[in-house]
Amino acid sequence: MTLAEASERISITYRIKHPDPGVVADAIRTEQTIEFPFDLAPQWIQESVVGHIESIDGEEVRISYPIDVTGGGLLQFLNVLWGNVSLLPGVRVIDIALPMEFLRQFKGPRFGVTGLRTLFDAPHRPLLCTALKPMGKSSDELAGTAVTLAQAGFDMIKDDHGLANQPWAPWAERVQIIARRVQEANARFGTHAVYMPSLNVPADQLIDAAHQAKEWGAGALLVLPGLTGLDSLRLLADDDELALPLMTHPSFLGSLVVSPDQGIDHGILFGTVMRLAGADISIFPNHGGRFSFSEDECLSIKRSCAAPLGSISAAWPSPGGGMTLDRMDELISFYGHDVALLIGGALHRGDLLANARSLVERVSGN
Amino acid sequence: MTLAEASERISITYRIKHPDPGVVADAIRTEQTIEFPFDLAPQWIQESVVGHIESIDGEEVRISYPIDVTGGGLLQFLNVLWGNVSLLPGVRVIDIALPMEFLRQFKGPRFGVTGLRTLFDAPHRPLLCTALKPMGKSSDELAGTAVTLAQAGFDMIKDDHGLANQPWAPWAERVQIIARRVQEANARFGTHAVYMPSLNVPADQLIDAAHQAKEWGAGALLVLPGLTGLDSLRLLADDDELALPLMTHPSFLGSLVVSPDQGIDHGILFGTVMRLAGADISIFPNHGGRFSFSEDECLSIKRSCAAPLGSISAAWPSPGGGMTLDRMDELISFYGHDVALLIGGALHRGDLLANARSLVERVSGN
Repeated sequence: MTLAEASERISITYRIKHPDPGVVADAIRTEQTIEFPFDLAPQWIQESVVGHIESIDGEEVRISYPIDVTGGGLLQFLNVLWGNVSLLPGVRVIDIALPMEFLRQFKGPRFGVTGLRTLFDAPHRPLLCTALKPMGKSSDELAGTAVTLAQAGFDMIKDDHGLANQPWAPWAERVQIIARRVQEANARFGTHAVYMPSLNVPADQLIDAAHQAKEWGAGALLVLPGLTGLDSLRLLADDDELALPLMTHPSFLGSLVVSPDQGIDHGILFGTVMRLAGADISIFPNHGGRFSFSEDECLSIKRSCAAPLGSISAAWPSPGGGMTLDRMDELISFYGHDVALLIGGALHRGDLLANARSLVERVSGN
Repeated sequence: MTLAEASERISITYRIKHPDPGVVADAIRTEQTIEFPFDLAPQWIQESVVGHIESIDGEEVRISYPIDVTGGGLLQFLNVLWGNVSLLPGVRVIDIALPMEFLRQFKGPRFGVTGLRTLFDAPHRPLLCTALKPMGKSSDELAGTAVTLAQAGFDMIKDDHGLANQPWAPWAERVQIIARRVQEANARFGTHAVYMPSLNVPADQLIDAAHQAKEWGAGALLVLPGLTGLDSLRLLADDDELALPLMTHPSFLGSLVVSPDQGIDHGILFGTVMRLAGADISIFPNHGGRFSFSEDECLSIKRSCAAPLGSISAAWPSPGGGMTLDRMDELISFYGHDVALLIGGALHRGDLLANARSLVERVSGN
């Protein structure tokens, strides 16, 4: 049996904090494939199933894996990327390279940057998203807020991701009322706002809830892949009957990125992996907001959202997490125009309609 | 509106590495609920939706949340437990207390410790599990190994979790062949081995694959909740038509626990959360194996697998990850008899049948 060419293999670069990174690398290439004493495996399995150490450069080790070990799709790819290795302290995935033959099995985002520019008739400007808050408000109250935001000209109005099936605004009631009120607002004000409910629903209801929301008039969907699983995102993205833009929320995913010496690099998780799984828009906490991401980490997400990835579309980075009105120019200068700006609570300080309008005007000018 | 009694609220204790833990706690109680400027929320929402800081003791802060914020079930509970907070460095969940009213909505493990003792006719001894390896072997070869392990008297023979739909042993072919061969082995040797396929399958096939595996003769299932989502585990556990024991694998979950100052304590994730989600047996890497868990962390898992949790059954801790034959007595002394010992690769060093038999004899003597 001949070995595959390096370019036909999946390549993962790890940064390994250890006195001897090569020893850890040797463990990883076995751990992520055969999970079996290397010396006891038949020679062809040692050569053609176990990963190959391609290079060791200080702490940085590149291991390549044959595509066949990921047989089964996204789930097993994620398992090879970060399954058992996730249990090792001091190991971080800092780069991946995916061969065309591997990438061809993924459709990626249905809309991506180009598709949403067409959908929102926004050939150049950033997209503008906001969230319905706070939890505790009734469906009617949240719908009232949505109407104001639609009137102001926002592109996308999403549920706060934590709006699930609480008694104050139960899921089905909320989605129906808000979807209808946003459509009425669009008709009345000549706007094109899209309502995006949160798919914070039990696993057995996920697909039905997505279709039901579309039937009720939702124009996009918020997915929580850290909770529902990244492969369920792919399932929603690949659903030709559904065919709605999907925005991903980072809930429950933070521990994968925030420890500098452990986890997966920000760009790989919130860019590459989200695109593989079909996210049109990937939310992450912007630098200088309520969370901890640095400028460099945010840049890495921006780049990975747009970097070549076979024929998989570019996704919209969506920096959020405590953005304020006075930072919008800075954000556009930092991210460029291919950005889905996400501003929530700060719009409510003062007059909501006036704040929202002023933001829309500022962004429309770009 | 009156506030709920403390005992009626969900209580989460965080260890916060920060010069002023109270400031972070104030952010968390808002972040995990309304995600909205506190001062802009109506007073009743400030009091009855936002979490309450119950105590601050050095780095340890206890916050309580009303049950209603978790409306929607396990997914939204996990979101309250670790959704946005996962993006904060220096925060770790070190304790949770769940009120009866909250716990009543979860069925937990269908079998648990008592149920599997009955199923395996093992009133006192530990259970004995092993994994079919290495990836690269054909379905026939893996089935041959399974027959040997059944003959030796193992209780459960699982797929290696990374066995998905690789060309060497495609999922459907593998599950059918191994399930049949294990049943034949049981008939021939008078044993009662259960074959447990890995549900490493695409999201849209998860439930069907589980039922199909049962129809083909699988007697238990291996679930990867870090990849398929914890709520899909609950769905499988609650499925009365399926009604099979479920073992969970820690793949992709490691980053939630391995950084001492960030994440969720080992016992809460691999004990409490897995039981809420319905795991009968929870795998984790034992201390002194290929991974990094300490003795204390393993003890915390053991304790959380058995601690009172409403009427939710105790689960079996299943230490694995590089266990060897000569450690079995030590493991039983450490974990007690309510443990599902998991030994894989080490059985293959020398004669598989002889090693497996010697292990079964040692454990049966307990």
